[in-house]
Amino acid sequence: MKSATEYLTFKTAEHRTYVRITDDVARVAKASGVREGFALVSAMHITAGVFVNDNEPGILKDLDAWVEQLAPFREDYHHHRTGETNGDSHLKSILVHHQVLVPITAGKLDLGPWQEIFYAEFDGQRAKRLIIKVLGD
Amino acid sequence: MKSATEYLTFKTAEHRTYVRITDDVARVAKASGVREGFALVSAMHITAGVFVNDNEPGILKDLDAWVEQLAPFREDYHHHRTGETNGDSHLKSILVHHQVLVPITAGKLDLGPWQEIFYAEFDGQRAKRLIIKVLGD
Amino acid sequence: MKSATEYLTFKTAEHRTYVRITDDVARVAKASGVREGFALVSAMHITAGVFVNDNEPGILKDLDAWVEQLAPFREDYHHHRTGETNGDSHLKSILVHHQVLVPITAGKLDLGPWQEIFYAEFDGQRAKRLIIKVLGD
Repeated sequence: MKSATEYLTFKTAEHRTYVRITDDVARVAKASGVREGFALVSAMHITAGVFVNDNEPGILKDLDAWVEQLAPFREDYHHHRTGETNGDSHLKSILVHHQVLVPITAGKLDLGPWQEIFYAEFDGQRAKRLIIKVLGD
Repeated sequence: MKSATEYLTFKTAEHRTYVRITDDVARVAKASGVREGFALVSAMHITAGVFVNDNEPGILKDLDAWVEQLAPFREDYHHHRTGETNGDSHLKSILVHHQVLVPITAGKLDLGPWQEIFYAEFDGQRAKRLIIKVLGD
Repeated sequence: MKSATEYLTFKTAEHRTYVRITDDVARVAKASGVREGFALVSAMHITAGVFVNDNEPGILKDLDAWVEQLAPFREDYHHHRTGETNGDSHLKSILVHHQVLVPITAGKLDLGPWQEIFYAEFDGQRAKRLIIKVLGD
């Protein structure tokens, strides 16, 4: 069995943004030498997400409006009694999910034609990490 | 380590529908010869989902109404400026998630008594693929 | 390849509650002897979830209010024609997702500084199971 582990660090200019990371995952998968396996892509913070969808600017705008509608910023989250102001970012992370598992077949990411992997930052402007972990043969 | 990969293709009669695929996943798991491992079940399109829940027609109707309520069809999605009309289908895919990982124990899918695996079609009436990938020993 | 499988059983006093299980997952991972691998943590019932977030009482209260807002109890779910009353619990399970995959690196759960693993009970007061399955080398 082979494995490979790499960490990416994001420090986004925006409070919320969506970063395409398909090429990073492909690079780690290739370097691992794994022909048949899985690549886990998982945010290491509780106010970020990872998802697979379309690399089309319009749908990313729609997604951003949608997460704000379903898990809006509010002053009165219980979480804010700790001094934090990012209760909505935690809920957005749970809404979108914080990880995906990408199949590797014949040495390549086995994604559909429009599937791209994104890191979703819901509370940015500081350094945050993500793990890519490949396992297989 | 053993692995097996199979693709299912769906071309549903309905725009939205939910297809039970537990038996397909069990078949691929069995044919792989894996005794202890994981079966990844992952939609390869960005307007579809995969989930585990109850094979009870009522809850599937409730689920369908619920995804339409939380991620409704709208004319004015930014995504529609591309000529597409399926912005809601993308958001529904993110809401439900596009994949599950099924444990395999002693050569069988290790699911709870009511757990069934479903393919969720959110923009059907055309051919769409799903990958089942088994890894283990 | 090494593997380990363990089942936890929950019988919560509350209808809905959130149980921190990070230590259980760490214990199973350690006992497996796996140095590089994955730990799948997956609810075996269709009215429960598993998520990774902050072990902060305020955000858990916010989460509980949020799932009730987005997938509320209602009398009139189609599912209730079966005699059940937990349609909302099924939808909450799909909203939060029923599983996470935790990376294991150098023999330890490779989680970020605030990441904790939770079992989310959405229809408790009876015995319900969860599987922890570790795979790796």
